[in-house]
Amino acid sequence: MKLWDKGFSTDKKIDQFTVGNDRELDLVLAKYDVIASKAHAKMLGKMGLISKDESDALLKELETIGKSIAKGKFTIEDDFEDMHSKIEFLLTKRLGDTGKKIHTARSRNDQVLVAMQLYLKDELTEIKAQVKTLFDLLLKLAKQHQKVLLPGYTHLQLAMPSSFGLWFSAYAESLVDDLYFVQAAYKVADQNPLGSAAGYGSSFPIDRSFTTKEMGFETLKYNVVAAQMGRGKVEKATAFGISSIAATLSKLAMDITLYMSQNFDFISFPNELTTGSSIMPHKKNPDVFELIRAKCNKIQAVPNQLTLITNNLPSGYHRDLQLVKEIIVPALQDIKACLEMMTFSLKEIKVNKDILDDPKYDYLFSVDTLNEMVKSGMPFRDAYKTMGQAIENGNFKPKKDIKHTHKGSLGNLCLDEIKAKMQKALKP
Amino acid sequence: MKLWDKGFSTDKKIDQFTVGNDRELDLVLAKYDVIASKAHAKMLGKMGLISKDESDALLKELETIGKSIAKGKFTIEDDFEDMHSKIEFLLTKRLGDTGKKIHTARSRNDQVLVAMQLYLKDELTEIKAQVKTLFDLLLKLAKQHQKVLLPGYTHLQLAMPSSFGLWFSAYAESLVDDLYFVQAAYKVADQNPLGSAAGYGSSFPIDRSFTTKEMGFETLKYNVVAAQMGRGKVEKATAFGISSIAATLSKLAMDITLYMSQNFDFISFPNELTTGSSIMPHKKNPDVFELIRAKCNKIQAVPNQLTLITNNLPSGYHRDLQLVKEIIVPALQDIKACLEMMTFSLKEIKVNKDILDDPKYDYLFSVDTLNEMVKSGMPFRDAYKTMGQAIENGNFKPKKDIKHTHKGSLGNLCLDEIKAKMQKALKP
Amino acid sequence: MKLWDKGFSTDKKIDQFTVGNDRELDLVLAKYDVIASKAHAKMLGKMGLISKDESDALLKELETIGKSIAKGKFTIEDDFEDMHSKIEFLLTKRLGDTGKKIHTARSRNDQVLVAMQLYLKDELTEIKAQVKTLFDLLLKLAKQHQKVLLPGYTHLQLAMPSSFGLWFSAYAESLVDDLYFVQAAYKVADQNPLGSAAGYGSSFPIDRSFTTKEMGFETLKYNVVAAQMGRGKVEKATAFGISSIAATLSKLAMDITLYMSQNFDFISFPNELTTGSSIMPHKKNPDVFELIRAKCNKIQAVPNQLTLITNNLPSGYHRDLQLVKEIIVPALQDIKACLEMMTFSLKEIKVNKDILDDPKYDYLFSVDTLNEMVKSGMPFRDAYKTMGQAIENGNFKPKKDIKHTHKGSLGNLCLDEIKAKMQKALKP
Amino acid sequence: MKLWDKGFSTDKKIDQFTVGNDRELDLVLAKYDVIASKAHAKMLGKMGLISKDESDALLKELETIGKSIAKGKFTIEDDFEDMHSKIEFLLTKRLGDTGKKIHTARSRNDQVLVAMQLYLKDELTEIKAQVKTLFDLLLKLAKQHQKVLLPGYTHLQLAMPSSFGLWFSAYAESLVDDLYFVQAAYKVADQNPLGSAAGYGSSFPIDRSFTTKEMGFETLKYNVVAAQMGRGKVEKATAFGISSIAATLSKLAMDITLYMSQNFDFISFPNELTTGSSIMPHKKNPDVFELIRAKCNKIQAVPNQLTLITNNLPSGYHRDLQLVKEIIVPALQDIKACLEMMTFSLKEIKVNKDILDDPKYDYLFSVDTLNEMVKSGMPFRDAYKTMGQAIENGNFKPKKDIKHTHKGSLGNLCLDEIKAKMQKALKP
Repeated sequence: MKLWDKGFSTDKKIDQFTVGNDRELDLVLAKYDVIASKAHAKMLGKMGLISKDESDALLKELETIGKSIAKGKFTIEDDFEDMHSKIEFLLTKRLGDTGKKIHTARSRNDQVLVAMQLYLKDELTEIKAQVKTLFDLLLKLAKQHQKVLLPGYTHLQLAMPSSFGLWFSAYAESLVDDLYFVQAAYKVADQNPLGSAAGYGSSFPIDRSFTTKEMGFETLKYNVVAAQMGRGKVEKATAFGISSIAATLSKLAMDITLYMSQNFDFISFPNELTTGSSIMPHKKNPDVFELIRAKCNKIQAVPNQLTLITNNLPSGYHRDLQLVKEIIVPALQDIKACLEMMTFSLKEIKVNKDILDDPKYDYLFSVDTLNEMVKSGMPFRDAYKTMGQAIENGNFKPKKDIKHTHKGSLGNLCLDEIKAKMQKALKP
Repeated sequence: MKLWDKGFSTDKKIDQFTVGNDRELDLVLAKYDVIASKAHAKMLGKMGLISKDESDALLKELETIGKSIAKGKFTIEDDFEDMHSKIEFLLTKRLGDTGKKIHTARSRNDQVLVAMQLYLKDELTEIKAQVKTLFDLLLKLAKQHQKVLLPGYTHLQLAMPSSFGLWFSAYAESLVDDLYFVQAAYKVADQNPLGSAAGYGSSFPIDRSFTTKEMGFETLKYNVVAAQMGRGKVEKATAFGISSIAATLSKLAMDITLYMSQNFDFISFPNELTTGSSIMPHKKNPDVFELIRAKCNKIQAVPNQLTLITNNLPSGYHRDLQLVKEIIVPALQDIKACLEMMTFSLKEIKVNKDILDDPKYDYLFSVDTLNEMVKSGMPFRDAYKTMGQAIENGNFKPKKDIKHTHKGSLGNLCLDEIKAKMQKALKP
Repeated sequence: MKLWDKGFSTDKKIDQFTVGNDRELDLVLAKYDVIASKAHAKMLGKMGLISKDESDALLKELETIGKSIAKGKFTIEDDFEDMHSKIEFLLTKRLGDTGKKIHTARSRNDQVLVAMQLYLKDELTEIKAQVKTLFDLLLKLAKQHQKVLLPGYTHLQLAMPSSFGLWFSAYAESLVDDLYFVQAAYKVADQNPLGSAAGYGSSFPIDRSFTTKEMGFETLKYNVVAAQMGRGKVEKATAFGISSIAATLSKLAMDITLYMSQNFDFISFPNELTTGSSIMPHKKNPDVFELIRAKCNKIQAVPNQLTLITNNLPSGYHRDLQLVKEIIVPALQDIKACLEMMTFSLKEIKVNKDILDDPKYDYLFSVDTLNEMVKSGMPFRDAYKTMGQAIENGNFKPKKDIKHTHKGSLGNLCLDEIKAKMQKALKP
Repeated sequence: MKLWDKGFSTDKKIDQFTVGNDRELDLVLAKYDVIASKAHAKMLGKMGLISKDESDALLKELETIGKSIAKGKFTIEDDFEDMHSKIEFLLTKRLGDTGKKIHTARSRNDQVLVAMQLYLKDELTEIKAQVKTLFDLLLKLAKQHQKVLLPGYTHLQLAMPSSFGLWFSAYAESLVDDLYFVQAAYKVADQNPLGSAAGYGSSFPIDRSFTTKEMGFETLKYNVVAAQMGRGKVEKATAFGISSIAATLSKLAMDITLYMSQNFDFISFPNELTTGSSIMPHKKNPDVFELIRAKCNKIQAVPNQLTLITNNLPSGYHRDLQLVKEIIVPALQDIKACLEMMTFSLKEIKVNKDILDDPKYDYLFSVDTLNEMVKSGMPFRDAYKTMGQAIENGNFKPKKDIKHTHKGSLGNLCLDEIKAKMQKALKP
């Protein structure tokens, strides 16, 4: 990064430092800038701020640009600071003065805001669908393996019998909680900021309700200062949403790597999903799950990254906010990749059936045995003592025919109820 | 903390390290343990797991304990590990074997979970009310001072005219976004975990739907493993909610300390709300707002604290989770105190009226002046150049009669629409 | 925290919010305020800023106050904002106008700074000693159990033979790295800030070199603005130091809880160091180590807490900095307690001897077997393939007589070299 | 990231997910892999583990590869997982079986470790030099503008006179503290991990002291498990170092953006270093400093990112650790760019001379005036009251001829002493 050793002029140095990798990130966002520009152009025409012909011409050219973006042919050369400059350049090149008029009654600030929010809405929608797919798979696996028992641990010590049914569907039900935060993030993003201009509105009589409908926002972010304060805040809301999911995936991945260890040996995966070692030929390493865990842990750091960048800045735009983009865009790509790989890999899981036949797991049944005593009338604390002595003296005989019947127990997984909860959570 | 220098026995040392300040925190939670214990006792009676008489006796004594808690007379002596032990001790002391039976079909784990969730629901409800109070005040101030102009900054550089109307109501509308996260947190907490026992359910035929209704939960956390995984997760959901609010309050406090500086001099507060200096007699320091800012910044660190404690732990209970309590309880007290102090202090704000008369603020009007040229037909980019030259040559004459009419602009604050948005957000 | 419902006057409310738990924390720091006040009084006398008699009188009374602090008899009543006010009150009560003169040429700001830095130096010194004690124990355990083999894992998959010798001394050598950060923190704290007054120095001709020597600081923080910027920064430096240690302890605790699990069963601890379960009579839970892990993870969140509070504040004192105290003081107590409990508990560790006799661990020896092939001339990649096939076909025979001779390997632990490294790190 | 929609085979999908952007990052590290491979090959030859001819052949080819890296001609195609595979491929292609022998007695794990540590040492060395350059500039500016007064603020309220001399040199002295952490990080990195293989050493009789000297490490990380635990830990040590610097730069940038605001107007920069606005022609925005602030705040999030990824992982390698690279490499590039841009821009700073002539700053002189009273014998607290009344009654007359003489005050900056401190800190 020795900028001036490269023979750069001052301007060039500053440009390189200030633009950073924005051009690359903008390729992801350009589509949304076009959508917003079209709504804006239409509104300008409708309100007579530009002529009908000008509005039509702008719309037509924006359509063309939109198509080139969809085809992956849109580029942002080093001459342009960002996508916004490039698009405006294209409009002006093709339409002359009319092209320049697209910038009437808006600012770079609300352009960035609206494009980002449209982008976040799309991403969150995709993520919700991915969560639903994983959720469905988890419920399917829970049903399929509902009778296969698994040791349940507390303090990593053997505790009580659990089951694959419980284990899989626990993660399904947990994902519902995460969705509440995704939905909250979606609501924050679903408010049209266009028209806030540089954060203090415009003296043009623009119609913000019109653009709101045109772009499919549920409502406006009314207050223009509030809209501007959304920069950073909307992204952090999204970060809360995806970091909730990430926490769940990370925990599942931790369980999986543990259960794949030869010291547990509860599950396995086909060779294609594990990797070898350069020095230990027998290894079948759970790299995919370790990377899901690590990526999800990295995602969980995102809210704090955004807080550090945005915190203690007084109201009003600061250039600092540009950096938010280079944090949230990769994080969204990461969570989507993790959701996809988790679903993709989990499909192939192989579950060991007779785990609890190993006598080292006998103590798992102590509580149920104790409960039988209680059911036959002994006060709990006394049964507890009797039981403890039996174990001390080596007289303990496990009663392995478990009958758990209450809601949510291993004999009564309530998968339909959990499914219904998810359906409800997915509603807007 | 030289434990063994104090002549403690081994047990005592371990106890001191493991219990920490749990007893103190439990005084806040004891009320909720009683509520849950009552629901549990009632259910045990209803299901015939204990007799009707036993159930009644337990309920009566729990009622008595609940009253002593309400009166502030409940204590947890050092002989007891926590509130749960103390309450069980009281029941057993008064009811003998019957007292012991309260522990039938439950575990310390689900006791802690359910008490915490009931507590969080209450706290979040109170916080929602406090946010609403502050929101109402902000709207009131916005209305009251809607015509008073304020410089709007970007990059901390003078940019465009803003107003106190915009400034106050921007924070109001921002609070609506924060509420989405509080509501999401509430939903996560509003699922009955009782019956999950140590995280793997119980062999007793308990009726979890009954206790759910009895305690006023909207639904069950069905899966018992999911219920257990809620430990830490519910608190982190709450932390997301309150840290959203904290970010907004912190920013408002930052603005206030800036605007109180002699270099801005936009607002002031009565003497009682500022503090002096031990060495500079003329100072009127905004300590209250600095402390709101700092406390809110500390609160924003809470999600990360909880993540660090809970992350990469495989499923199943770990003692680590105990530490969650000592983080979330003070954070809730802090956010409530900050909301209260912000409302309390903001009521007294004095707004300077003629800020923009100072000629240094003339450039604020350049954009509007420029827009006038555009409205009269000049393409934006050309008007921009003309304008720039006028400024360069010192010929710029500000046009100070601002007419912003679009939604959310300083001439059209849409306070009612913002109010309606908040009403909607507050609905369950 | 409904402050005004308690019938408090405005002043009282503000006081409660702004003072917080400062009085309690100040009891820990009061000792250091006295040390600094004595140095200051002596210097004032020496420079003729107060008379010799006044200086002597102040010193005598400060001595008395210092003794009452040492005896635990010093209190800070609610009438006083903090220890500084209380100490000044005592001086004035006893010495009249002379008492007031202690405040000549200093400010609350540099008083807080210097007391905190003296406190941090003492704490860091104690922590270094505790680290050394744990380090010595780890080396002792490494020597004692150097021949006992242990599975070495990568990806939590069985990989290669390790040993208790390696395991214990790995943590010892890791602690040396942590000490580098403790030493860096010590250097930051070891610069006298007294004389910086409110952050801009004083017009009195004070002798800062004199107070520097008097209090035993290695040097001055010369620049008074830099001294003031040390507030928050010194504490964060300390936080880096202790969070380095915390990361190491947390990892060791994680290993321990894993190795205590019935699925590993490598180590155990006597009953006094484990706790039971309210519902599972056979459990021996590693609560102490789980709490060490959790507390150390909480400590690792401290640098970020401090960053959030201090970040993006322009230079000059802000009241926000008061909150730093309530974060760093408990964190120091926690790390000391964790170091103490780790040393205390680890002493009692029981190591299982014949772990690798279990045939499931046979593959651990594959690499060494492969290396033998290489030593006899086969290229590595070919040996690797041959080996892989032997394993596939079930023909693999482990060669269990391991001979690792290189530095730092299980046959050559280099405990003396590690010890020497620690000695060097401990030097100032 | 819809991997399977792209028609990828399973292997391809897994590869894409697991390799990520490692190939790109490895281009930065390849140079160091070659250095380490050369030391390793030399040692293998010396110890007779390969023949002298083989060793020479490997060294020659590694030399060639090293040159192609230096020329920017080295590439890592998609067929290769990383630089290590590519380099081994080149060696094997050119040398046949001999090429494969480079992998004798080492593993991918210690290859990555040693390359990373060599890289970090180089980066930290460069960073130290950059810090020194900035430090020198700050001292030069302090000397140049030492007599120019500036308001000193506390609570963002006018407090006491400060000066540009104090302000510039405060940041210089602060950088010394940051260097202590850079030096600590350097020490952690300066320990040879090569020979730790997969984290449990090797059965080959390798000479780790030889490679230590050969690569210029100060010492070995002796214990092979400790060496492996260094993965993540070394990077986090570096992160502590650079985040210390980042905190200082961020604060300086905050001051600068504030002082450039029209409400302060203390400093300015030439046009090339500021940027315009798309809508406000008069703006001169401090984008460079805002981006330094934001990037430095992002860097301050790095320690926490690394903690989240590495925390609560038991000892032994996990694939999670791969992600550390993609965090630390860009962070190092960012801090270097920020140091460079800060030095580059600060050189051009223009300082306003007569700031304190504005009567609004008169109160700044109240403390000095008060001190004069004290010097003439009035007790401090009484002088304080008298002074306060003068201000209340509007009778206050500032005494503007400041005479601060003590060490580190605005009249006695001690620039040489600060310089000496830096020299000492820079010593190894």
